[in-house]
Amino acid sequence: MKIALCQINPVVGDVSGNVANMLEIIDSVRADVIVFPELSVTGYPPRDLLCHPDFLVEAGMAADKIVAATRGREGVAVIFGCPVLDAPYTHAYRAMYNSAITAEDGKWSMTHKALLPSYDVFDEARYFTPARREFANSIRPDLGVTICEDAWSDPEFWPDNQAPYDFDPVESRVRTGAKVLINISASPFNVGKPHLRYQLISKHSRKHQRPFVYVNQVGGNDELVFDGRSMVFNEFGYLIHESQAFGEQISIVDTETATPVDCNVRDDVDEVIDAVTLGIRDYFRKCGFERAVIGLSGGIDSAVTAAFAVKALGPKSVFGITMPSRFNDPRSKAISDTLAKNLGIEVLNVPISKLYAEYCSTFESTLFRGAEQSGVAFENIQARIRGNLLMAFSNKYGNLVISTGNKSELAVGYCTLYGDMCGGLAAISDVPKTMVYDIARRFNKNYELIPTWIIDRPPSAELRDDQCDQDTLPAYDVLDGILKAYLEEGKPPAMIVMEGYQEKDVNWVVRAVAKNEYKRRQAAPGLRVTTKAFGVGRRYPIAAKVVKDLARPTVGQHNSGSRV
Amino acid sequence: MKIALCQINPVVGDVSGNVANMLEIIDSVRADVIVFPELSVTGYPPRDLLCHPDFLVEAGMAADKIVAATRGREGVAVIFGCPVLDAPYTHAYRAMYNSAITAEDGKWSMTHKALLPSYDVFDEARYFTPARREFANSIRPDLGVTICEDAWSDPEFWPDNQAPYDFDPVESRVRTGAKVLINISASPFNVGKPHLRYQLISKHSRKHQRPFVYVNQVGGNDELVFDGRSMVFNEFGYLIHESQAFGEQISIVDTETATPVDCNVRDDVDEVIDAVTLGIRDYFRKCGFERAVIGLSGGIDSAVTAAFAVKALGPKSVFGITMPSRFNDPRSKAISDTLAKNLGIEVLNVPISKLYAEYCSTFESTLFRGAEQSGVAFENIQARIRGNLLMAFSNKYGNLVISTGNKSELAVGYCTLYGDMCGGLAAISDVPKTMVYDIARRFNKNYELIPTWIIDRPPSAELRDDQCDQDTLPAYDVLDGILKAYLEEGKPPAMIVMEGYQEKDVNWVVRAVAKNEYKRRQAAPGLRVTTKAFGVGRRYPIAAKVVKDLARPTVGQHNSGSRV
Repeated sequence: MKIALCQINPVVGDVSGNVANMLEIIDSVRADVIVFPELSVTGYPPRDLLCHPDFLVEAGMAADKIVAATRGREGVAVIFGCPVLDAPYTHAYRAMYNSAITAEDGKWSMTHKALLPSYDVFDEARYFTPARREFANSIRPDLGVTICEDAWSDPEFWPDNQAPYDFDPVESRVRTGAKVLINISASPFNVGKPHLRYQLISKHSRKHQRPFVYVNQVGGNDELVFDGRSMVFNEFGYLIHESQAFGEQISIVDTETATPVDCNVRDDVDEVIDAVTLGIRDYFRKCGFERAVIGLSGGIDSAVTAAFAVKALGPKSVFGITMPSRFNDPRSKAISDTLAKNLGIEVLNVPISKLYAEYCSTFESTLFRGAEQSGVAFENIQARIRGNLLMAFSNKYGNLVISTGNKSELAVGYCTLYGDMCGGLAAISDVPKTMVYDIARRFNKNYELIPTWIIDRPPSAELRDDQCDQDTLPAYDVLDGILKAYLEEGKPPAMIVMEGYQEKDVNWVVRAVAKNEYKRRQAAPGLRVTTKAFGVGRRYPIAAKVVKDLARPTVGQHNSGSRV
Repeated sequence: MKIALCQINPVVGDVSGNVANMLEIIDSVRADVIVFPELSVTGYPPRDLLCHPDFLVEAGMAADKIVAATRGREGVAVIFGCPVLDAPYTHAYRAMYNSAITAEDGKWSMTHKALLPSYDVFDEARYFTPARREFANSIRPDLGVTICEDAWSDPEFWPDNQAPYDFDPVESRVRTGAKVLINISASPFNVGKPHLRYQLISKHSRKHQRPFVYVNQVGGNDELVFDGRSMVFNEFGYLIHESQAFGEQISIVDTETATPVDCNVRDDVDEVIDAVTLGIRDYFRKCGFERAVIGLSGGIDSAVTAAFAVKALGPKSVFGITMPSRFNDPRSKAISDTLAKNLGIEVLNVPISKLYAEYCSTFESTLFRGAEQSGVAFENIQARIRGNLLMAFSNKYGNLVISTGNKSELAVGYCTLYGDMCGGLAAISDVPKTMVYDIARRFNKNYELIPTWIIDRPPSAELRDDQCDQDTLPAYDVLDGILKAYLEEGKPPAMIVMEGYQEKDVNWVVRAVAKNEYKRRQAAPGLRVTTKAFGVGRRYPIAAKVVKDLARPTVGQHNSGSRV
């Protein structure tokens, strides 16, 4: 059977644009079955757009158009994803399903999603009713269609072998006569996810001795980056096709004749580089921006962020601004000029000393009159002046500010709200600092793109004389190790200590994470590349007691608001 | 039967503190049944704290303590709320329930919540497994316990008579022998909610001819304000007790002898005043803050916000800062001094002209060299200077900044990100502008607290000469009418036009709402007082096409970032 895997990059909400693109593909592709990803009509995740009845009616009418387009092409089935109401074209529906529609020669049948992910970044129970019965594909009983999470009921692929589901829709399709298994997905990337998917789909195909076709969405949608990587496994569990990662691709695979291929996952660093690049590119494109502006500090975070922006948008679309103060190493500005030259981007130097002096004078004469003229307010104001200048540039020229903070500092609040946190997109806010270094070295693989001095210098916020990150933070390998165990693996602090980290470090980190929830609540959207990013997938209270061995308050200490 | 309604104000996450308080109450109260609210052990909503196994174990052990405390007091039942695992004290559980525990003389039984709200601000399907069977209360079959949403299966209380549930747990309790119906709740306030609750609970008690005891949590937890207002209805459907709104109260009600009372809901304005006041007070207390700082512009929003802060925290805990520029009416600063005097708060004047001049000079000499020296960047920078000064004051003295934006301007983006949006709490960000006026007049009921000039002047951002809100926005009564229909009632734009609003106004508003999602994503938490607030209960994509008749982009136009 010839199957077309249509790994497309829909724009969330753009039903007419997405469907026009799908119709064009259907028209041009020659295959027995043409498969699009989950919710391909609306893009994924549509979030609360699904609460607008007129949007749902629009999606339903668009689905009708696709069905109509299959008329007269007997023997060609089109499978696509669309939200479906139990009472179409009215506002008074009782249930909405996340459905796969199989259409052939103007006829159609539906399969509803049974397993609705409602954890981390997923909110499907908010919108959808789960399918509660077996679905035979009435017009094409040979095609066993499932939707994304439907393929994930196997406890083997869950922490502690505990799957939250007790029904296996894939098995159900086999029972009702499927010869070929097809899963339409919108499965976001994170480090480790591709390997999990290979094992999962391979296991299904081996177990049921049937070919398994897996079609995933590709593209960046706000925080989520979908890596595509659509696949076909043959009935022996061998990979016989894999579409490219992080790019659109229409592939036609003959399940009977195709031969085994190698999977194309690279190491974590290369994967994250591609994910962040696509995330930036699509955020700009889908928001209608062409140009970025980035504050270049002479540190590694802004250097890596600028390199990403150039990779995503091209050097002509990236603008750098250096904003030195008297606390900067004089080489910071010079090295940023070198970096800009290496990247081929324009750079502008805007010293902030006079603005800083004017704030100091305002502090002394009014705001802090009679008080000691020092402290964290004097550090933060520098970051905020820089934020203001970047936003002013954005207001004037329409460049979107990319903020440069990494995951390690966002986790423990080593960043200034309304200062270096300013921006429309936080490109590397889910990349731990240790990996930022790895990425910098990878960028330098062939030649010195990021000056070595930037990579080798001790990291510093340069907001006061002789400041150094490690005055405040544990060593970054320790910090990142604890953060991974605590945030990603969900381990209790005591267990992290048992793994060999010092108790004082673990406690400091856990407290810092709790205390800085209020800052993260106001952070720019960040691109998710790990199993647990800050943002939509992590939902904590602020006015709460989060760490039990601490006196209140544990969170919401807004007065720090600082790199302290 | 003598029932103690324990309307308490738990701190989210503070299991030991909450349980200590509950044990004290249990010890001191003399009643046949002692009832606490939903999830009283953890506070509501605990959000992702429920993903920490050690937190769940702590909650389970605390529940054991409460059960132990009932030993030796035969005939006294204690009912409280706690998350319950199917495999207690281990990390390898398959299901977690939102449960009510009935304890008597050291014995206990559990009732799990069957209906899990997963819409608006509620995320219960993210954490809990629904009860799938009837629960007889094994140790006290006469007490029919349900949990919050369990009482809401009746379609009459849902839009379009469409309830998302097909099971009525209250009826189920009656079937299994309940003589008295008890609901433990954590039901947040919004305008209109108290009346809905009266009707709902009254209908249950009439229908089943049994007394109905409803115990609700009280207090502010981040965005949500719980109004308490616990109630008892007798078997004829008459209200025979109502606890106070917006305050803690332990009441003992005899279901056999109590006589009907009037309900104590006041008009929307008074209700919202109490809700916002409690929301501010608890956010400060639970975050560990004592003092607030507010920028006083001479406009109505900051005046009303300051009045709220004084009501919540007392005048000694509130600090005002005026930050005039040359674009302010010279009377703006003077009127703020009068306001501060009326409120009894300290006020400091920090003119921003020199800082503004310094930014203009930086713009001219570097950032905008060769470009026209005007435009929205020059407006926004003023708001951002003010934000910086407020945050600097916060950094120095530990006062939490309360931001002053109202719902109307947040909806259409008539506010400056990192400028007037700076703050730890957005006190009135769910109050429409027209209601801000109503509140100001209500504050002035007995004497002129807020100078009439502030109420009467035409609203203006004062960021350029002769600026006026209505240069940009529709009249506020039109804007608020459209926003209510669109955001709260979920009506499609075409339907709003049919209701009599002008098409151009409706389109402008709908587009402005869509375009400014990126600003709201970075807004401070705001207190929810309507059926649909921005924040956790409204989840939209940014890089998306939200309004279909617009060219891309419809959202994410960060370059405006402005009061435009």
